Amino acid sequence: MRPSGRQPDQMRAVTIERGIAPNAEGSCLVSFGSTRVICTASVETSLPSWRRGQGLGWVTAEYGMLPRATGSRTRREAASGKQSGRTQEIQRLIGRSLRAVVDMKALGENQITLDCDVIQADGGTRTAAITGAYVALREAMGWLKARDLLKGEPFRDSVAAVSCGIYRGTPVLDLDYLEDVEAETDANFVMTGSGKFVEIQGTAEGAPFSREELASLMGLAEQGIAELSAIQAAAFEG
Amino acid sequence: MRPSGRQPDQMRAVTIERGIAPNAEGSCLVSFGSTRVICTASVETSLPSWRRGQGLGWVTAEYGMLPRATGSRTRREAASGKQSGRTQEIQRLIGRSLRAVVDMKALGENQITLDCDVIQADGGTRTAAITGAYVALREAMGWLKARDLLKGEPFRDSVAAVSCGIYRGTPVLDLDYLEDVEAETDANFVMTGSGKFVEIQGTAEGAPFSREELASLMGLAEQGIAELSAIQAAAFEG
Amino acid sequence: MRPSGRQPDQMRAVTIERGIAPNAEGSCLVSFGSTRVICTASVETSLPSWRRGQGLGWVTAEYGMLPRATGSRTRREAASGKQSGRTQEIQRLIGRSLRAVVDMKALGENQITLDCDVIQADGGTRTAAITGAYVALREAMGWLKARDLLKGEPFRDSVAAVSCGIYRGTPVLDLDYLEDVEAETDANFVMTGSGKFVEIQGTAEGAPFSREELASLMGLAEQGIAELSAIQAAAFEG
Amino acid sequence: MRPSGRQPDQMRAVTIERGIAPNAEGSCLVSFGSTRVICTASVETSLPSWRRGQGLGWVTAEYGMLPRATGSRTRREAASGKQSGRTQEIQRLIGRSLRAVVDMKALGENQITLDCDVIQADGGTRTAAITGAYVALREAMGWLKARDLLKGEPFRDSVAAVSCGIYRGTPVLDLDYLEDVEAETDANFVMTGSGKFVEIQGTAEGAPFSREELASLMGLAEQGIAELSAIQAAAFEG
Amino acid sequence: MRPSGRQPDQMRAVTIERGIAPNAEGSCLVSFGSTRVICTASVETSLPSWRRGQGLGWVTAEYGMLPRATGSRTRREAASGKQSGRTQEIQRLIGRSLRAVVDMKALGENQITLDCDVIQADGGTRTAAITGAYVALREAMGWLKARDLLKGEPFRDSVAAVSCGIYRGTPVLDLDYLEDVEAETDANFVMTGSGKFVEIQGTAEGAPFSREELASLMGLAEQGIAELSAIQAAAFEG
Amino acid sequence: MRPSGRQPDQMRAVTIERGIAPNAEGSCLVSFGSTRVICTASVETSLPSWRRGQGLGWVTAEYGMLPRATGSRTRREAASGKQSGRTQEIQRLIGRSLRAVVDMKALGENQITLDCDVIQADGGTRTAAITGAYVALREAMGWLKARDLLKGEPFRDSVAAVSCGIYRGTPVLDLDYLEDVEAETDANFVMTGSGKFVEIQGTAEGAPFSREELASLMGLAEQGIAELSAIQAAAFEG
Repeated sequence: MRPSGRQPDQMRAVTIERGIAPNAEGSCLVSFGSTRVICTASVETSLPSWRRGQGLGWVTAEYGMLPRATGSRTRREAASGKQSGRTQEIQRLIGRSLRAVVDMKALGENQITLDCDVIQADGGTRTAAITGAYVALREAMGWLKARDLLKGEPFRDSVAAVSCGIYRGTPVLDLDYLEDVEAETDANFVMTGSGKFVEIQGTAEGAPFSREELASLMGLAEQGIAELSAIQAAAFEG
Repeated sequence: MRPSGRQPDQMRAVTIERGIAPNAEGSCLVSFGSTRVICTASVETSLPSWRRGQGLGWVTAEYGMLPRATGSRTRREAASGKQSGRTQEIQRLIGRSLRAVVDMKALGENQITLDCDVIQADGGTRTAAITGAYVALREAMGWLKARDLLKGEPFRDSVAAVSCGIYRGTPVLDLDYLEDVEAETDANFVMTGSGKFVEIQGTAEGAPFSREELASLMGLAEQGIAELSAIQAAAFEG
Repeated sequence: MRPSGRQPDQMRAVTIERGIAPNAEGSCLVSFGSTRVICTASVETSLPSWRRGQGLGWVTAEYGMLPRATGSRTRREAASGKQSGRTQEIQRLIGRSLRAVVDMKALGENQITLDCDVIQADGGTRTAAITGAYVALREAMGWLKARDLLKGEPFRDSVAAVSCGIYRGTPVLDLDYLEDVEAETDANFVMTGSGKFVEIQGTAEGAPFSREELASLMGLAEQGIAELSAIQAAAFEG
Repeated sequence: MRPSGRQPDQMRAVTIERGIAPNAEGSCLVSFGSTRVICTASVETSLPSWRRGQGLGWVTAEYGMLPRATGSRTRREAASGKQSGRTQEIQRLIGRSLRAVVDMKALGENQITLDCDVIQADGGTRTAAITGAYVALREAMGWLKARDLLKGEPFRDSVAAVSCGIYRGTPVLDLDYLEDVEAETDANFVMTGSGKFVEIQGTAEGAPFSREELASLMGLAEQGIAELSAIQAAAFEG
Repeated sequence: MRPSGRQPDQMRAVTIERGIAPNAEGSCLVSFGSTRVICTASVETSLPSWRRGQGLGWVTAEYGMLPRATGSRTRREAASGKQSGRTQEIQRLIGRSLRAVVDMKALGENQITLDCDVIQADGGTRTAAITGAYVALREAMGWLKARDLLKGEPFRDSVAAVSCGIYRGTPVLDLDYLEDVEAETDANFVMTGSGKFVEIQGTAEGAPFSREELASLMGLAEQGIAELSAIQAAAFEG
Repeated sequence: MRPSGRQPDQMRAVTIERGIAPNAEGSCLVSFGSTRVICTASVETSLPSWRRGQGLGWVTAEYGMLPRATGSRTRREAASGKQSGRTQEIQRLIGRSLRAVVDMKALGENQITLDCDVIQADGGTRTAAITGAYVALREAMGWLKARDLLKGEPFRDSVAAVSCGIYRGTPVLDLDYLEDVEAETDANFVMTGSGKFVEIQGTAEGAPFSREELASLMGLAEQGIAELSAIQAAAFEG
């Protein structure tokens, strides 16, 4: 039924390749099927002025897309002179999602900037970006710990994200581009490794949705996040 | 328990004053307590070029805030030379919410722009804006109908929005600014008059939230939207 | 003879409603007939860097217009990314006009920003803005005085503004939009309560004007300013 | 009494050198003492879209200043990314002033852009610019006439501009920079060769001014404009 | 003597991986040692308006760098709102270099945009970008040929680029970042496969250079380009 | 053979008029035939923050063109809101060229900004700008020396620039606009008074060029630079 032949509750193949950007304090290439995102974490030992002197750190994010990540060429934002509303919305979401699991006191007066750059886009770029950004951030936290620059355990939990939607009447997990275009309802879930919700964004693209439909999407999301959390954890093993 | 002395499931006083902007085809001043927003609907009988020739209309929205709508002065976006990420996020949400209840075929090749300008801000400006924008839009649809410019009934349903959140451990309806700042979880619900969901945006500001907590917020939202829908309907009576 | 049926030397109904924006240190809603402007005064106890350390205060102004203040929708300046030449010209005029009556030594090292936002436009928005901004500024001066933050009496005089023009050959006072569009000559007068001139801007829209014509406009302006000054004073009584 | 030793009613040496920019259809270098402005007139045989199809021409102006026209270096507007409010105000004034003496029907569907670039600034750059722009425009009209591209006599009158002010209590003609900085009142007059007013902009920099003071400035302006008109005319003789 | 231990005339390991961006009509990942650039070629079957109707095609280029391609994070150009002078200079060079070997008549009225995005930067990003862009362009020409959209053989020659410089007194080939920072003279050579020059940019970073020094750099460049041309050709074999 | 009737190795008439901008610490009007550029040098006794505290000075440059310097009007960069890629490329080249001959230690912690504004353009504006900027810079160095603000001899050499190209098969010196448009190869040479190279930029506009062709252009450049250096020196004599 799904264009890819997947089962309704089947995610795409997800891989996380750590250390892709050797210049960065943390980095990975995350793939959700054909969606591929380079995530880097850059540590700065100074803070923006409004954040200084409180003994707290800061985590922020930026998002971009190579012009030909998409089926037809998208205009380069640097050339058009501003980031689109969509880009800003996504990078604000990534930043909030990561901040939700970081203990800012433990981070101390350091700032970490997460850059998520989409190399190839096939739906779900924001959820892949959040999932990969956590891995890059954890690598960077390791870098800080190795230099004794942390004041405690920086993470309260892990975080990952996945999209679900109602496609031709059926709730499905991890929409690809073809499904995304056609889905009646599209929801992004950001959740912790322990299964709690950090952010939910559900949108009726066609008909409005009911409480029951949302519940079925939440069930799929919980399953998908469990898989993603395991893949994140595995990236730090062996 | 709430700073305003309201019950957990009690909305602020909501009023809708129609016709506030006589130049516009539709308009109202909507108040959710001290939050006040001027909403206008402007009809154009031409469409943006990418939308032409399909027999479909278009509805879009812009959002702004007077510099002194807030407790301390906010920089004027026209002076700083761009709309903030927050502004873009809100105006995209308003546009999507209204489009969800409009039959674009019935609208015909007309465009309606909704301008939501916050005169005074005390939390919930985006939910007030959506609720008022529906009233302005309905007035403008009446204007089009009176000139025989519609191709059918333009609305599939009505739409309104309300915020809910967990404040000091208790789920509460329609957060004001003092509650918003402190809430652990903050969620905006856009729903139809018939009680279905158009958009849900839930964010953990402090600790992540559980499925049960979200469910309790949804319950409050359903009640609040029912009240708002009645007030919207009443604005067109008498 | 005038579209509104007014006498040549008759102003529109002028009202000033104080305290319209409770968040601001000073505010009013000023109406010149259908032209309505929200004026707020925001006090900051710091100065721009170039003004510091001289024991002098500063007063500045910004001007805006809601998109649907006008008969057809005007593009939002925040969306187009810059303030138009007209907007900048007006806000520079408002700032100069108010500074002309303020004793900057008495103000001390405080800055007051006047925001004039046009809710409805029917000609004369800049003169209404100046007239209302004085009231908002005076309220804010009261706020400063109540906190003992002034170093003396801050006003040297009051200030108000009115437009005059030659409409179908006759000099008329306080042009509305219909007259403004058609007037051969259009002049804005900013004057003090004691009847002296702060700024005159006279423009021949059609045929150039003579010294006598200008003199007749000045006479009308003196009468109009006297009326406006009385209305400003009355707003602080009772 | 004046820093330059001039009499109160004495203008600076004014010269107009025609044909300074051979690429342009009209041009001159105008000097008011040490203030020097290159004025060019560029003819385009097409119009901006909003002006087309009415059988009318258009005249517009742009103004700039070389960074080191001033005593200390001024930031280049092209580098800072926008024209200042002052620049926009001046170029709007230049455009209005020239349009006031042009018969747009006679000009036909042609557009002329006047560029006024200040090479050296010593007060009165806008009045020098207007005075020179008229000469450049007249040259360009000659160019059009020679190609039989006009539909009649394009000028209804000539136009020039001069500043006057009250300097240390005395009304003086044609302020230079040292006077401008200190003047209590500063007024720019744009007048036709036949002695009528096109634009008056009078500003109280210090104390507000009276009707009598304005009248004395108008008298000086009439004298100055008569001299400037004669110099403009002489530039086309011999 | 060189930080990398290379011989003066030894290039870094160069690899070209074709087809890296499946959405694009042509693409490759080119590596000059640790410098890695994704090059894509996007075909559009329409032209910019100034180029239409002449029977000629167009080739243009854009250049970007991921924020963490560099040792410390570089500000994202999309966020700062404009492309730097360096970026514009490089993308103009890439465009000119590629256009030099394309027969615009044979290309027909098609446009090809080359996007060169630096994933990792270790000196020589512009020369790697040109070398890779040729490969992406050739793939895209194949795509056009396969659809019978070309009017003849589109290439007059191949093109590649390499940098040379005088490092600690010795002419060396293919500078890496450590050498680039310290080099007295730095030159970029763009050459055709047949050994002719398309562009030379030589800059004295320290002391000015002599004709003989430039000649020695040209000799190294000829050797390096021969190697690069062979690697480009090999990418299309097997 | 050349449109101007010049010999292949004949420069246009070159003149340098010093002191053209009395407000500036250094200035000249440089003419290469009909190409005319105003060059000013502005001394600031402070540095940009990144350069402070190292005991070194800084020299930077900006470039502009009056809109009607060209045959048809060019859009004003201040109005379009940004400097073009071409402008940025040229001003970066001017800055690098001048810095190459300045001893930054001798300059001390002063900054000099060179503004090169093209009044009339007939090819070779960047080479004229560099040649004139050196003269303005040397005047400004004299100004600093007279105030005892230098720490030694600030120049290591003089610097000038000239273009050469292959026009209809023949190498020619100092291209004017008509030649520039048609030249197969176009090269700009920046050289010191002692005959060494500071920068070479050679571009194949038509067919790629050979080592021999470049050598012949270099020979012409050496001759042209010798002439220019003599004219620069003469400007400081008598």
